[in-house]
Amino acid sequence: MSIQAIAFDAYGTLFDVYSIGELAEKLFPQRGAALAELWRDKQIEYTRLRTMCATYKPFWEVTQDALVFSCKKLGLDLTLDAQNSLMGQYAKLKAFPENLGVLQDLQGMGLKMAILSNGNPQMLEAVVDANGMHGIFNHILSVDAVKKYKTAPEAYQLAPDVFGLSAKNILFVSSNCWDACGATWFGYTTFWVNRANAPLEELGVTPDATGRDMTALLEYVRQSREAK
Amino acid sequence: MSIQAIAFDAYGTLFDVYSIGELAEKLFPQRGAALAELWRDKQIEYTRLRTMCATYKPFWEVTQDALVFSCKKLGLDLTLDAQNSLMGQYAKLKAFPENLGVLQDLQGMGLKMAILSNGNPQMLEAVVDANGMHGIFNHILSVDAVKKYKTAPEAYQLAPDVFGLSAKNILFVSSNCWDACGATWFGYTTFWVNRANAPLEELGVTPDATGRDMTALLEYVRQSREAK
Repeated sequence: MSIQAIAFDAYGTLFDVYSIGELAEKLFPQRGAALAELWRDKQIEYTRLRTMCATYKPFWEVTQDALVFSCKKLGLDLTLDAQNSLMGQYAKLKAFPENLGVLQDLQGMGLKMAILSNGNPQMLEAVVDANGMHGIFNHILSVDAVKKYKTAPEAYQLAPDVFGLSAKNILFVSSNCWDACGATWFGYTTFWVNRANAPLEELGVTPDATGRDMTALLEYVRQSREAK
Repeated sequence: MSIQAIAFDAYGTLFDVYSIGELAEKLFPQRGAALAELWRDKQIEYTRLRTMCATYKPFWEVTQDALVFSCKKLGLDLTLDAQNSLMGQYAKLKAFPENLGVLQDLQGMGLKMAILSNGNPQMLEAVVDANGMHGIFNHILSVDAVKKYKTAPEAYQLAPDVFGLSAKNILFVSSNCWDACGATWFGYTTFWVNRANAPLEELGVTPDATGRDMTALLEYVRQSREAK
């Protein structure tokens, strides 16, 4: 295997969504964790339903819909202020502490890098800006270009197209196991950043490599290149 | 609107999946509810991932995969015996108490009826048999025929094809809101059996009608036909 480029998932992989749960807890004491979890699940569920039914809508809006539903389901009174704070959090998520250093090292090794995310372009620009990461990525790819969310093949095809490489020569990195599995099915070489020490999804497919954080990814890339 | 046939979702709509939670609680005291919920969520998640990635596998197997994952995630030791009991429960789920009477009344009104389910044919045959419902349905349709799960259009297309009717003239009935919404997007006239009094999914689409149980469905069909 010869990795010539890396495509990163954004939310949960590069950027830490933990602060959303913290803010939810502040707004809805004792219910923050439940809200953050249901919100995330609904957000992803809606992307899949809209992809299967060809009813695409940008991630920002889907995320907002999921928040509204989750509050109704949990019986929480979502004021406009609370909605704006929670949504606004997405624009300023912090990168995990080791990430910037690892990304710079990977860049130093001559690897081309991209973000490949469900997020719409405006969301991605904002969070990349907020983390001073503009110099790092050659491309910021949003599924908005194809109006289908991951794990649709059309979404995964964005990185091979823009790099002019076969998926096998691109390392796809995600902390979402379903995303790493979908990318493996698609044909990428894959690395699952299993930060939560979760069990592997029972999908009959295994990412090529797994590690606990981005430092483990750096180590994996180094070893892969030495083994060539 | 002129309803000439009805297509029913199976699990949760015709057949009560509550007994699965009861059995799970017996096998894993204090954890039954959590297992039943995660199992159901994973089961549906896997059908969607496999549909988006064209990696279809029959519902029985997907259901088993979801059970295995859920137990790993919750740290429950799933023996083969426990696995067989839980899976076996799907084959003998009881219909909701009002269902047989309502189905017979609908049949008496001259309506053609079908099941349109994610379940594979063997599972559906077993549960229809167990409930003595063979005389009721003109067709038992499984998405296995198209190797794509609901909410894929190819899955919903099965009933219009077999009835030779447009989707608008078929009433699609489901207790899963996402299924009722997907069917509405597809073009069916739809009825959401909202047994749990859940909020409507925030998908920008609303089923044509909603009721608390199958008796409400019967009332809706009667009124629709009188209004013609």
